[in-house]
Amino acid sequence: MARLVIDAVGGDNGLAPNLEGAALASREFDKDDELIIVGETEKARKYIEEHKLDIKINHRFVDAVNNVTMDDSPVKAVKEKDDSSISKGLQLVRNREADGFFSAGNTGAILAFSLVKLGRIKGIMRPALGTVFPVGNNPLILDVGATPDVKPEMLYQFAIMGSEYCRYSMGIDKPSVGLLSIGSENSKGSMLSQKVFDLLNSDNRLNFYGNIEGSDFFENKVNVIVCDGFTGNVVLKFGEGMAKYFKESLKGIADTSFKAKLGLGIAYNEIRKFFNTVSYDEIGGAPLLGVDGISLVGHGKSNVKAITNALKNARRLVENNLIKHISEHIEQRSFSEEG
Amino acid sequence: MARLVIDAVGGDNGLAPNLEGAALASREFDKDDELIIVGETEKARKYIEEHKLDIKINHRFVDAVNNVTMDDSPVKAVKEKDDSSISKGLQLVRNREADGFFSAGNTGAILAFSLVKLGRIKGIMRPALGTVFPVGNNPLILDVGATPDVKPEMLYQFAIMGSEYCRYSMGIDKPSVGLLSIGSENSKGSMLSQKVFDLLNSDNRLNFYGNIEGSDFFENKVNVIVCDGFTGNVVLKFGEGMAKYFKESLKGIADTSFKAKLGLGIAYNEIRKFFNTVSYDEIGGAPLLGVDGISLVGHGKSNVKAITNALKNARRLVENNLIKHISEHIEQRSFSEEG
Repeated sequence: MARLVIDAVGGDNGLAPNLEGAALASREFDKDDELIIVGETEKARKYIEEHKLDIKINHRFVDAVNNVTMDDSPVKAVKEKDDSSISKGLQLVRNREADGFFSAGNTGAILAFSLVKLGRIKGIMRPALGTVFPVGNNPLILDVGATPDVKPEMLYQFAIMGSEYCRYSMGIDKPSVGLLSIGSENSKGSMLSQKVFDLLNSDNRLNFYGNIEGSDFFENKVNVIVCDGFTGNVVLKFGEGMAKYFKESLKGIADTSFKAKLGLGIAYNEIRKFFNTVSYDEIGGAPLLGVDGISLVGHGKSNVKAITNALKNARRLVENNLIKHISEHIEQRSFSEEG
Repeated sequence: MARLVIDAVGGDNGLAPNLEGAALASREFDKDDELIIVGETEKARKYIEEHKLDIKINHRFVDAVNNVTMDDSPVKAVKEKDDSSISKGLQLVRNREADGFFSAGNTGAILAFSLVKLGRIKGIMRPALGTVFPVGNNPLILDVGATPDVKPEMLYQFAIMGSEYCRYSMGIDKPSVGLLSIGSENSKGSMLSQKVFDLLNSDNRLNFYGNIEGSDFFENKVNVIVCDGFTGNVVLKFGEGMAKYFKESLKGIADTSFKAKLGLGIAYNEIRKFFNTVSYDEIGGAPLLGVDGISLVGHGKSNVKAITNALKNARRLVENNLIKHISEHIEQRSFSEEG
């Protein structure tokens, strides 16, 4: 049984994808699951009625203000917007009225509210935001921005959390974990990454692969890629920028000659299909790991499919008791802030 | 007048591209320039004779052993291979018999030998390896791997060196400098990047743009991108991996249907042309900045064009007195290792 909160007003496209996604996801939920739709209740009810959406499980509405913009700083949001859908939604998880939360709203604000409302899992030093890389074997990368300044033991904890997430979200029994570095040998890398290498190597509950390099994101070598939040964020955004650059370049190539335009026109559908597979719609949201509750973040541009997948993922993580598993793995080691 | 050393045996393809590149570059050199061809002299002479290469400027041969493999560790190379072409070539620069050095050999070994033979420019804390990113406005990124562990003042020095390189290699009068970070505002980023931001902001000889993010590599925002050698190396290799992935994906798309194959076949030449422009052949080698002499590194796969451009670039840097300009800019500030 899972009780899930959806931020109905989160994301660039407002109610529509959130409510449509909720309805679609509910088809695959159990009878005793529950959905709590947080946001502008009146508008949400109206949308559901007008569009004849059928949410097939128990659901209820909680009214909240749609006032966290995509540009709000996390600090500002937490200080001034406690009446927001993000805040109220996470409060429901905190109060044990719900088991998981999803929002396609402002990532920084969701991170900040999650930390404030849910707190950290006992023993966890810092949270990590993970994201599934939509190519190849879909590795999970963490952290991609929650914790830019890390100590070795934090990265070790990210590896544990990523490994458990991979197991309980994607059903991979012994996910392999790679440490992002700048050389494949143990002796290569920064002082930080060399220390982390030894920590990861010392935990036989982890399936540690060793160092991986930037190019290995595309080589299906590991299921989990561990890095600090600074490097992870830079790489993630670099990848988005490069994908956009390639798409635009193909358009540019089509403009260079009649032959190119003709050829790319003929292949257009297949090219489009390829770019659709390399998309974040399938990944089920980005998990904020380390907080004491399921909290998933969606891209601001999330469409119905992305929302549907995120809710199904949230349900899976609740059912599989992700938080308990992380907690148990963490408890077996003692950590010090000194790292 | 420039006296340049070429490592005739550096790179995956041995003598051929190095000697062909030298001959081609020499056409654009002055009569009083000199080329010193370091490597297996007998074989080199034979190649030049057999292929009727015309090296149009003064040149001489220095015999050396071709024994630094692409897999040798820098430490091993420096310890055991002082008779190598890399070592002997850099020794010529050290002895003031030459003004600049280029090799397409083992990058780590070239870095290590450059440091040992040339030493650092007075005041420079750590060296940085720069590389010109072959898209858009061709920004220079540094460091891409020479110094993975940095302090704020090191990054500040990288900005100075990158800015001077951009000026004297590419002729950009006031190159704009961006600091790679994970948010555009000053307050965003790691503790390190926030400190570097203030340092860059304080030097009015730098044209400091502010923070840039991973996606901005493709947006033509700045001429120089400053980052630590860990992040820079990860991003560089990620970009190489992603470019390869896209190329292979296009081939994969062609295999999905007859229509796709036909279309991409028709557009093939233009697509190939595009990928040829996004190449490192044009960038003139990767400069190792901070050592007391011109030292350029080429990709192991460097072809004739890449070698030609690297030698022309080396000559430009000598003629324009890059080392003196870096030295003067650095001298105006005082740096402490404490950063």
